Amino acid sequence: MTNGSPQACDQAPELVVHTWFNTDQPLLLSGLRGRVIVLVAFQVLCPNSTAHGVSQAKRIFDTFSPDDVCVIGLHATFEHHDAISAAVIKAFMHEYRLKFPIALDQPNATGPIPLTMERYKMRGTPSLILIDKLGFVRKHAFGAVDDLRIGAEIGALTQEVAMPMPTLLHGIARSSAA
Amino acid sequence: MTNGSPQACDQAPELVVHTWFNTDQPLLLSGLRGRVIVLVAFQVLCPNSTAHGVSQAKRIFDTFSPDDVCVIGLHATFEHHDAISAAVIKAFMHEYRLKFPIALDQPNATGPIPLTMERYKMRGTPSLILIDKLGFVRKHAFGAVDDLRIGAEIGALTQEVAMPMPTLLHGIARSSAA
Amino acid sequence: MTNGSPQACDQAPELVVHTWFNTDQPLLLSGLRGRVIVLVAFQVLCPNSTAHGVSQAKRIFDTFSPDDVCVIGLHATFEHHDAISAAVIKAFMHEYRLKFPIALDQPNATGPIPLTMERYKMRGTPSLILIDKLGFVRKHAFGAVDDLRIGAEIGALTQEVAMPMPTLLHGIARSSAA
Amino acid sequence: MTNGSPQACDQAPELVVHTWFNTDQPLLLSGLRGRVIVLVAFQVLCPNSTAHGVSQAKRIFDTFSPDDVCVIGLHATFEHHDAISAAVIKAFMHEYRLKFPIALDQPNATGPIPLTMERYKMRGTPSLILIDKLGFVRKHAFGAVDDLRIGAEIGALTQEVAMPMPTLLHGIARSSAA
Repeated sequence: MTNGSPQACDQAPELVVHTWFNTDQPLLLSGLRGRVIVLVAFQVLCPNSTAHGVSQAKRIFDTFSPDDVCVIGLHATFEHHDAISAAVIKAFMHEYRLKFPIALDQPNATGPIPLTMERYKMRGTPSLILIDKLGFVRKHAFGAVDDLRIGAEIGALTQEVAMPMPTLLHGIARSSAA
Repeated sequence: MTNGSPQACDQAPELVVHTWFNTDQPLLLSGLRGRVIVLVAFQVLCPNSTAHGVSQAKRIFDTFSPDDVCVIGLHATFEHHDAISAAVIKAFMHEYRLKFPIALDQPNATGPIPLTMERYKMRGTPSLILIDKLGFVRKHAFGAVDDLRIGAEIGALTQEVAMPMPTLLHGIARSSAA
Repeated sequence: MTNGSPQACDQAPELVVHTWFNTDQPLLLSGLRGRVIVLVAFQVLCPNSTAHGVSQAKRIFDTFSPDDVCVIGLHATFEHHDAISAAVIKAFMHEYRLKFPIALDQPNATGPIPLTMERYKMRGTPSLILIDKLGFVRKHAFGAVDDLRIGAEIGALTQEVAMPMPTLLHGIARSSAA
Repeated sequence: MTNGSPQACDQAPELVVHTWFNTDQPLLLSGLRGRVIVLVAFQVLCPNSTAHGVSQAKRIFDTFSPDDVCVIGLHATFEHHDAISAAVIKAFMHEYRLKFPIALDQPNATGPIPLTMERYKMRGTPSLILIDKLGFVRKHAFGAVDDLRIGAEIGALTQEVAMPMPTLLHGIARSSAA
């Protein structure tokens, strides 16, 4: 597993979201424990986001069961703030047939970098973050990511146990003591 | 030469433009006689425009001399009118590094189809129109167009004489009479 | 895990090999327990083998550690027997920079289908077979295979335990009894 | 028109051929005057030949009328002489569905480079040579060639007159004198 960022292996911070699309209620990462989370940050007018990040997110969403893998888009508007409205993002989602939940990152009162992007120290768009079943960041990549490798990494994470190791070992100890 | 539309071989009507980008002054097709014109209609939030029309327009612009071939983009906004502003188009042009002149098609007071798109009877975006040195429409295609074929068609048009045949023949006749 | 063939979940039969390339000694699948095996059957003059099977095998070989995943090529000559010599296969391996072990399937005295291809009931080339750490066939695919999906399947198999379940449980029982 | 070789603009020498495939009788370039000739040199075990040269030759053959453009393959065996037999080339042609005439370059008694390859000073495979209607080399390229550009160059050549200029002018003078 390649760790592309200092915060790999840290607990994944919650998203700070201005608006959610494609979901009836806001998502909390803490509410998704037991599933692998693939967080894909993008911008609608960013060529690499469109060609790589968004299309790969669609393929991941189409490949894995939602019971195993939760794909979340994050529109991290850090450029062209005057051009990007919620209407632009909704039209993009419609045209690109995006069906997974998408969060519009919360603007930052003090600068161009929105709050979730800042919190995750993303270097730009597209960025891809893998979060394991226990909520830890396991990969943090910027730019195009290879399909075979990301498939392997997600596939491996889906096989991990969903409970923290100490709890698990404790349970085994209790069982064997009984 | 494939003719994809009833108006192929008609005189190309002038564009009706709300705003020009990437040019100091408005372009008139009649002012471009003697050059082959490649008119590529697109929309910034249209996946096929981005993947095919716009990227092919860039390749055409990079392949031919501007003395021979004039590439013109036309943003034909017929969907998502609330989302598409001039700021969105300018940000798109910046991100996709588009250097050729781009016209924002004039909105239509009576419906969603803008005026140039209506005048050319385009079926959607992307559309590609080839106009010969004399101003006649020689190809009208909707959707993805093959690079090899469009290269061949443009290459052939660049070799045509720039004067109407009657004039040319008249000129030859005069010479030989002298 | 998609099972594309009736023999998925059967124990993988050993390869019947005329000549091995890229390995000092013949490989036995039984000698590779504990590793995931990716067996890619191809033919050097088969366009889909070259475009899909062989290039994907190279990517798999480059992506995974050989301690986890063992890529084996199988040249299953079932057509053009007069054209395909060991010299052709060696030249192909050289030109395509194939570094993983490759087996030339054993010709069949009674027909065009070589012995390993027949034993595995392959439908043609390219074919891809995934064998788990215990030696069971887990996937049997014919034709082009999606990179993201095969990555996920291999990645998941690498996480499986390398010992048969009964043995494992027995071991745990012994430990907890101590 | 890009000229990639010193011999561009020279008269194209005739091919020296061991065996012709896909044609009832040997072709002479001098017999093809009036048509643009696209000569594509390749080797069946050369990855770039397969991925670029051969597939582009097929697209050119499918795009242009045979009355305008004559595609000729040249198997220039300069490597792996022990592996490449006529049977290998025929099997390759069958599998890759090549329908245009293909010449097996004449081996060279004094070295590995076959005679046509030597005569044209080709640097390797794939190589692409454009010959105009009058028999002059107009392009000589080694390696992958861009579809749009080669389409444009062939398209332009198809528009050239098929008679040498002096003859043509002479003809006009005679007509006008009449």
